[in-house]
Amino acid sequence: MPTYKLTLEYCGTDFSGWAIQPGERTVEGVLAHAIEAVLSEQIKLTVAGRTDAGVHAWGQVASFESSRDAEPERLVNSFNGLLSHDVAVLAAEQAADGFDARGDARSRRYCYRVLTRRAPSPFERDLALHWTDPADQQALDACAAALAGKHDFTAFTPTETEHTRFDREIVSAEWRRDGELLEFSVEAHTFLRHMVRVLVGTMLEVGSGRMEVDDFTRLLAGAPRSDAGPTAEPHGLYLAAIGY
Amino acid sequence: MPTYKLTLEYCGTDFSGWAIQPGERTVEGVLAHAIEAVLSEQIKLTVAGRTDAGVHAWGQVASFESSRDAEPERLVNSFNGLLSHDVAVLAAEQAADGFDARGDARSRRYCYRVLTRRAPSPFERDLALHWTDPADQQALDACAAALAGKHDFTAFTPTETEHTRFDREIVSAEWRRDGELLEFSVEAHTFLRHMVRVLVGTMLEVGSGRMEVDDFTRLLAGAPRSDAGPTAEPHGLYLAAIGY
Repeated sequence: MPTYKLTLEYCGTDFSGWAIQPGERTVEGVLAHAIEAVLSEQIKLTVAGRTDAGVHAWGQVASFESSRDAEPERLVNSFNGLLSHDVAVLAAEQAADGFDARGDARSRRYCYRVLTRRAPSPFERDLALHWTDPADQQALDACAAALAGKHDFTAFTPTETEHTRFDREIVSAEWRRDGELLEFSVEAHTFLRHMVRVLVGTMLEVGSGRMEVDDFTRLLAGAPRSDAGPTAEPHGLYLAAIGY
Repeated sequence: MPTYKLTLEYCGTDFSGWAIQPGERTVEGVLAHAIEAVLSEQIKLTVAGRTDAGVHAWGQVASFESSRDAEPERLVNSFNGLLSHDVAVLAAEQAADGFDARGDARSRRYCYRVLTRRAPSPFERDLALHWTDPADQQALDACAAALAGKHDFTAFTPTETEHTRFDREIVSAEWRRDGELLEFSVEAHTFLRHMVRVLVGTMLEVGSGRMEVDDFTRLLAGAPRSDAGPTAEPHGLYLAAIGY
């Protein structure tokens, strides 16, 4: 059975997240439906990062096994012909037998986009957090610099949790500014649930002056969730790339 | 009577263009409604560039007279509080008496965005032309270089026309690439109707190899509309900035 690897882009606005749920429009549901129509067989998708409702993807990766030996380039066109406008297959390839988009992923990179201006944006409404408070670049940079390496991220995930270990290793983290847009980019092997959003929500508190950089760095040694800032809204978050 | 100058951003997708038309949702209609609600008086808007249905704006400018002497910063917040999500007031200021957003404009700059990749984009569907043919950068650059200066643009506007003069002077024209996005930027005092869209449609024919650069440059000396390429779709076009 050939294994196929798909690279996907989607706008999460009108999806109830990745994972199939009865009665909800999900990326997995829409995608599996298109694949099954093209291949005329049932398939089971495995995904590198299960995104929540409203979260977007530039480089999600999913895999599935099929009894069909199809030309990947043709599959891209067939899938895109059936998919709705808010999800697209960027690439398809036959992967090694047993390839697993989730288990084989070495790294995940997320981006979080923040629009820093007073007026709301007609173009960025569902695509970036609208932030009208101060966003001190030096403070944000100091927070990002503190993130590199291994830390206890207990403060950055909900208290009710299915996680059993809370240490994660951050490969890289940085804020970049492009005009009115601030973009936070962070890479790790795996993340805790809501971790990027709580990190961003807390760093923005520091950027606004309501918290100190030291408050933020102290949280990285392990602290209750209540010591961190709010969970930034989902619509600024993008699953940017998966490394294998 | 104070005259106010507004700088506006809007996503044209759900508008039937700028100008008020009975029974249609227009930018002018939506904006005038918000202004009149805030100022409690009827106003008459003058606009620098009347955009067609589906065309966007990053830096449209409109002006109006009012009997009210209001603080411009406050007006921005009041207007934005009443406007729908697809139009925003970026700035407001009191202009000199008699200021006219249309008549006083010295230059208009338009941009046209083209997405050059095979897969459709979940994020750019209404915001860039999706172009899957070749787009030879050298050919596009040669066309843009030929545009600078004064030419007869008869070939680049509909045959049925209200224009009486067809010569226009292009201040600057260039194509820039940012990854999969090609962006054409062009500045002139005024443009003919549909001129930027026909220019782009024709240059893309050259970029695809179906026309030669020489064919394009010959059109700049005056030619029938039928000698030029198609009118590129409105949803790639942005009124970028107005110079005074």
